Amino acid sequence: MDIQHYMHTLGRQARDASRLIAAASTGAKNTALAAMAAEIRARRNALIAANGQDIAAARAAGIEPAMLDRLTLNEKGVEAMAAGLEQVATLPDPVGEITDVRQRPSGIQVGKMRVPLGVIGIIYEARPNVTADAAALCLKAGNAAILRGGSEAIESNRAIAACVHAGLRAAKLPEHAIQVVDTTDRAAVGALITLPEYVDVIVPRGGKGLIARIANEARVPVIKHLDGNCHVYIDDEADPAKIVPIVENAKTQRYGTCNTTESLLVARAAAQSALPALAAMLAGKGVEMRCCEESLAIIRQAAIAGAKLVAAREEDWREEYLAPIIAIKVVAGLDEAIAHINAYSSAHTEAIVTENYTRAMRFLREVDSSSVMVNASTRFADGFEYGLGAEIGISTDKIHARGPVGLEGLTSQKWIVFGNGEVRR
Amino acid sequence: MDIQHYMHTLGRQARDASRLIAAASTGAKNTALAAMAAEIRARRNALIAANGQDIAAARAAGIEPAMLDRLTLNEKGVEAMAAGLEQVATLPDPVGEITDVRQRPSGIQVGKMRVPLGVIGIIYEARPNVTADAAALCLKAGNAAILRGGSEAIESNRAIAACVHAGLRAAKLPEHAIQVVDTTDRAAVGALITLPEYVDVIVPRGGKGLIARIANEARVPVIKHLDGNCHVYIDDEADPAKIVPIVENAKTQRYGTCNTTESLLVARAAAQSALPALAAMLAGKGVEMRCCEESLAIIRQAAIAGAKLVAAREEDWREEYLAPIIAIKVVAGLDEAIAHINAYSSAHTEAIVTENYTRAMRFLREVDSSSVMVNASTRFADGFEYGLGAEIGISTDKIHARGPVGLEGLTSQKWIVFGNGEVRR
Repeated sequence: MDIQHYMHTLGRQARDASRLIAAASTGAKNTALAAMAAEIRARRNALIAANGQDIAAARAAGIEPAMLDRLTLNEKGVEAMAAGLEQVATLPDPVGEITDVRQRPSGIQVGKMRVPLGVIGIIYEARPNVTADAAALCLKAGNAAILRGGSEAIESNRAIAACVHAGLRAAKLPEHAIQVVDTTDRAAVGALITLPEYVDVIVPRGGKGLIARIANEARVPVIKHLDGNCHVYIDDEADPAKIVPIVENAKTQRYGTCNTTESLLVARAAAQSALPALAAMLAGKGVEMRCCEESLAIIRQAAIAGAKLVAAREEDWREEYLAPIIAIKVVAGLDEAIAHINAYSSAHTEAIVTENYTRAMRFLREVDSSSVMVNASTRFADGFEYGLGAEIGISTDKIHARGPVGLEGLTSQKWIVFGNGEVRR
Repeated sequence: MDIQHYMHTLGRQARDASRLIAAASTGAKNTALAAMAAEIRARRNALIAANGQDIAAARAAGIEPAMLDRLTLNEKGVEAMAAGLEQVATLPDPVGEITDVRQRPSGIQVGKMRVPLGVIGIIYEARPNVTADAAALCLKAGNAAILRGGSEAIESNRAIAACVHAGLRAAKLPEHAIQVVDTTDRAAVGALITLPEYVDVIVPRGGKGLIARIANEARVPVIKHLDGNCHVYIDDEADPAKIVPIVENAKTQRYGTCNTTESLLVARAAAQSALPALAAMLAGKGVEMRCCEESLAIIRQAAIAGAKLVAAREEDWREEYLAPIIAIKVVAGLDEAIAHINAYSSAHTEAIVTENYTRAMRFLREVDSSSVMVNASTRFADGFEYGLGAEIGISTDKIHARGPVGLEGLTSQKWIVFGNGEVRR
């Protein structure tokens, strides 16, 4: 198969289908989503069998346990996919929303209309559930999608694609609206990200290395999520009752998520009082503490049983551990905390714990990250927690979409003018 | 001078200054803008003298008259620059605006805050007034800017930069907030568009070739404006009194602007009645008509004195003439008009002339361009006409900003969370 030619064909078909999907009614889109869910439930055994082929091949190739876990589709996973499709059907349709209509002195009325982006390319790892999730979100936002999942999931993705296409047919929508790249050839990714005539935006989901490579080689815009080096700053006017619960949740609720806190900053005036209790909680959870000189001295003096203490190196301020490890640094106060975050953070999510109004507002305003919080756990940075209903990913970019990206992030706004024969003077 | 090193230095200085400008008060930014305007007026003679050096050099190098016209700064031009700076000071400050705050079931309140993009690189032709305009818009939106104007304007730009810096000093804002690239070496452009660590977005203004090259080589996001192949579609339910005035204004008010109409589509049922009057108006203005077979026959039959009629070729449907030339095509009706526009347009601005409500709404919804209008001239697609106060350019992209880009287009939105000690369950 000539990959360039194949991807061109997918692109052209997606572009053609995108015109029809953009004009599709909310009812037709919701009918398709419900029909896809019904197909997935009806074909449960076939889906699990296809997934079994992927698992057998992956095991034979010596796949890592974590990857195998993400690849596996069981009965619960199939039901979750179907329920996810139905849930997207319940979300409000963003397409066609008209806002900001204003009367201009010339006589025209000018406003904005929310419209689909067009064709979205999604590149992701071997996680079959993403195939259904991404298809649902792109379709509901009126876009055509080209989905390129990890090659280890090829049989699962083919089986899911069959359900998606049956759903589109049931709603009389074009099947090319959602296309799954049906080859494990890696050249397909390179082709997909260099088709500006057919693809309007690429959303890569996966490891940092993959995303960085795509961002570097793409010739179309990329909504990317690099790493999540999130911070909690404990101000010297923090409510002592809020400090430990927030840090405990932000660091230890789940170690592997991008909104998990990796660095803890503590105001010097709060360090003596706050650090021993924080260190005791972290030691109790088995979290290794990589400390600046000052925090190391304070925690050592507290002589906490089982505390794993390590002197932090410069690299620790930048690290996304995704593990039971936290970097701890004493700072002079708010100014140094903001400067440290803006210098070392990956601009994902940061929180301040303080009762001081002015410092809270300054932190919100001056910290340059996609989510900035007062007195709340960084773990809240999530499309569902924010009320978006679902998310295609979390953007650490500044252009177009920042933070959790839901249906709105898969749309754009055009200008509309209601005139009555006006001409420009 | 080592260009890479020089541009790195500008980038680092801009990044550092961007933190201070992002946190600057509206009052300080407006003070700086007013002080810049005062400096420009006070140094009027020095500015005109510096511009005189550029003009002499450009004349000696045999510059084209149109370029010379754009390069020239006279007393009126100096006053317009100063007035432009003052006008930007009167615009509302977009930075810090909080919207969409919602209470979530977890207890947190989630909203959005408008924030600057950071560092903006502007690449433009030898038009000294753009130096002042771009500086003003970037500053008001809380961004640092690196300005790279055409090398023919280097002396003018140095003199304007001195006024800008004096204004920043007067407001106690960092001078590095606005930096003018002080070299005519073309390698500076290549360096500026490949510094993702220091530059958040590039706005190229200029010829299509330059913009296409920048979009292709940039390693940072680009807000770009390619061509403007705008359409007017005359529906068979158009009000006859609106047809000629709209087309006349859209095509002939100014030939060289991007929102000028280049293609006219006419519904078959309206062609016999509408085309003779349209052709008479166009002939009267000396506009060459490049017609499809059907429109050519109708206009020929009308025997209009002085009509310049040419058979259209396929290329004519794509062309941005920027000249007294228009392409004319008869279409079956709305469906063919929308399909033609979505296939051939540059997605800038399109208008329908119709009294039919359903067709008007379908045109607004289904035409995939940055501005879509009913019964109004395409010439209205402009930041001032839309009420943005000013514009840095018109985007033909879909991501981030579409159509006229004002202060809001130079900002982004981050998520903010107001908590009270909440943790995620």
